[in-house]
Amino acid sequence: MNKINYSEIKAGKIILKRDSANDNEITNRVKEIISNVIKGGDETLRKYTLSYDGIEIKDLKVSEDEINEALPQVSRQLKDAIKIAAGNISKFHKNQIRSEEKVETMDGVVCWRKSVPINIVGLYIPGGTAPLFSTLLMLGIPAKLAGCKKIIICTPPGADGKIHPAILYTANFLGLKEIYKVGGAQAVAAMAYGTETIPKAYKIFGPGNRYVTIAKQLVSLENTAIDMPAGPSELAIIADNSANPEFVASDLLSQAEHGVDSQVLLICNDESFIDNVNKCIDCQLEQLPRKEIAIKSLERSYFVFVKDMTEAFDLSNEYAPEHLIVSIKDVYNYLDRIENAGSVFIGNYSPESAGDYASGTNHTLPTNGNAKAYSGVSIDSFVKNITFQDISASGIKNIGNTIEIMAENEELFAHKNAVTLRLKEIN
Amino acid sequence: MNKINYSEIKAGKIILKRDSANDNEITNRVKEIISNVIKGGDETLRKYTLSYDGIEIKDLKVSEDEINEALPQVSRQLKDAIKIAAGNISKFHKNQIRSEEKVETMDGVVCWRKSVPINIVGLYIPGGTAPLFSTLLMLGIPAKLAGCKKIIICTPPGADGKIHPAILYTANFLGLKEIYKVGGAQAVAAMAYGTETIPKAYKIFGPGNRYVTIAKQLVSLENTAIDMPAGPSELAIIADNSANPEFVASDLLSQAEHGVDSQVLLICNDESFIDNVNKCIDCQLEQLPRKEIAIKSLERSYFVFVKDMTEAFDLSNEYAPEHLIVSIKDVYNYLDRIENAGSVFIGNYSPESAGDYASGTNHTLPTNGNAKAYSGVSIDSFVKNITFQDISASGIKNIGNTIEIMAENEELFAHKNAVTLRLKEIN
Repeated sequence: MNKINYSEIKAGKIILKRDSANDNEITNRVKEIISNVIKGGDETLRKYTLSYDGIEIKDLKVSEDEINEALPQVSRQLKDAIKIAAGNISKFHKNQIRSEEKVETMDGVVCWRKSVPINIVGLYIPGGTAPLFSTLLMLGIPAKLAGCKKIIICTPPGADGKIHPAILYTANFLGLKEIYKVGGAQAVAAMAYGTETIPKAYKIFGPGNRYVTIAKQLVSLENTAIDMPAGPSELAIIADNSANPEFVASDLLSQAEHGVDSQVLLICNDESFIDNVNKCIDCQLEQLPRKEIAIKSLERSYFVFVKDMTEAFDLSNEYAPEHLIVSIKDVYNYLDRIENAGSVFIGNYSPESAGDYASGTNHTLPTNGNAKAYSGVSIDSFVKNITFQDISASGIKNIGNTIEIMAENEELFAHKNAVTLRLKEIN
Repeated sequence: MNKINYSEIKAGKIILKRDSANDNEITNRVKEIISNVIKGGDETLRKYTLSYDGIEIKDLKVSEDEINEALPQVSRQLKDAIKIAAGNISKFHKNQIRSEEKVETMDGVVCWRKSVPINIVGLYIPGGTAPLFSTLLMLGIPAKLAGCKKIIICTPPGADGKIHPAILYTANFLGLKEIYKVGGAQAVAAMAYGTETIPKAYKIFGPGNRYVTIAKQLVSLENTAIDMPAGPSELAIIADNSANPEFVASDLLSQAEHGVDSQVLLICNDESFIDNVNKCIDCQLEQLPRKEIAIKSLERSYFVFVKDMTEAFDLSNEYAPEHLIVSIKDVYNYLDRIENAGSVFIGNYSPESAGDYASGTNHTLPTNGNAKAYSGVSIDSFVKNITFQDISASGIKNIGNTIEIMAENEELFAHKNAVTLRLKEIN
């Protein structure tokens, strides 16, 4: 990790640039994949699965038998952990369900909003080295709670043509049965446009590699919504010497092991604390199986020395981290200073991994500065709010003239006439 | 308007295709505009304003004097109407502000969400023939209520180099003083990337022509959020013979006058009612200043005969209209059937123009089928929800093992270690 001073950032000498998914070559390749899937449907999905995942898939949909076969392969221990995590995630997300009262804005003019589930949603769960069953919990639970009618899952098969048992167990645990063995940009294309087997989803969720990310961006330009723009995962920690350097080091590393393009920041007002954390990192790093990844990620990461907490929160708000750990004295006096962040972890005993897995908050969060305008995934991500209005005859008498005058001033006379005719009929 | 039968749609013989903004030639032109604005800043904005709006602008920012000069030019009548509409819009949107309770998902694990305003938002208000002060109300009021710190407005100047007095009056009425005389894709680029004069906004709102729409799409791929994908305005009406054919005709026309690319649908189970509406349209059309626009829009519009209300709501849900008027017997028995729509108007006395101007609901709504996954603009559009968690030492003891097991199964050992170290310290 590079040690720098906040003044260097303020002076524009150092830019905390994060990796972005944009890449013309990949974009063109993804455009081609999407257009081929639109044309060729299931057959094209099978071709890509053969060439990218190295396996020939006959039935894209995971069968009941495959699910039943997977269930006993998951340890009792993991099943219990998933159950506890799911309980917490459910509890936190249920609290987000809301209904709004009707509002009578004027006599006889009644307006309200109603939350209605998005009918068909698609969840992308990456495959690769580790099975991200936690992401399935984070997307599947709010989708179920929101009441989405059709929840489909796409995830790439392994070299044996199978989906990892932990993924199938988690899907089954959540009551999700529509699982398709397809990954990459082709999976996103399939969910966005539909194929013979895979239904068209109205909104697509989930993380993925650059191909997946770019595919989601591209389909979002053409009538399929997506959860949010995605980028490499990131963490900022604001700490003072009341924090525990060992814990801070472990949190920085838990982010750094995500991928070589991850970035972590430690924002601190105490140089000796920074040095301590640095030593702890060196020490802990030795034990990590994903050491090589973490090292690369740390190379693009920074210890930033700030002179006080005002600078610390200024920097954090400008950076708008996906994850923000705040481990400082009198932390509750500072929480209102947080303007831009995806998810905030308070104090010595709130590691980022708690939120990644089991505390209840969602781990699908805005990266790459998008926390300035985006929220993480929640129940809200799986519903839309439809507005309603019911105006009575007396209501239109009360509001009619206002509408007429405004319409006339915008030179929209048919708009005006729709009111004038009604007022005439009443009088 | 074309008379068709729902069976022809179901059989795929007729597709209710709407106009989409995508156009390669315009996209390339917009990309060039954006990159020029990034490079050239204010000077480039002035050049484009000269060539597109035909006027040389020295100061991009509207001065206090210009605002003061505009105020007396707005009629008392319009001022009163704006005040009433603003009151209703405020009342309805205030009801959307919410706070969530903290949730203790397990003993010692406390999680919550906090609504935090998006700091800097940009509102695009189109210029052209009519001054859309109503859009400024619909965007400015929730932005103010949400607590956005900086609310900037871009709107193109007229041939005299001025902004329409009704726009300036409305901005001033709402307490918005940062108004810039620039329109089109160049305005979107300026708000997305910032120039010497115009600050960078984190999220851009507002309607516009194809250039504006495509510019918003493009900047949304690069770290600036937008309200929603935009398309031509549209209306579907579900009516039976309890509706008033004159009113229905006036509502169809009020939508049709928006633009030649607007589409309207009348979904009805009574052929003679359809014929009556058709006659009323012919008759009302004669009186309209925007007759030529409405005629073109009606050419791409449909009367759809359905055999019953089940078909009517099936079609409406599939179409997912921006505006939906439902004027049928026992209407409240049917409201739960509405799955996809932007805003719903109930009964004989709820014309779409009420929602366009003054009833209180927002008129910035998802078009082109996007109501399947998107909501209209609301308070929610101007905030993001940050999650927080505070885990105590006893909390991490309760949840720690669950996290360790899950992290281990995802092969993320640094994630596990962040918990293990804490558990060790406690025990």
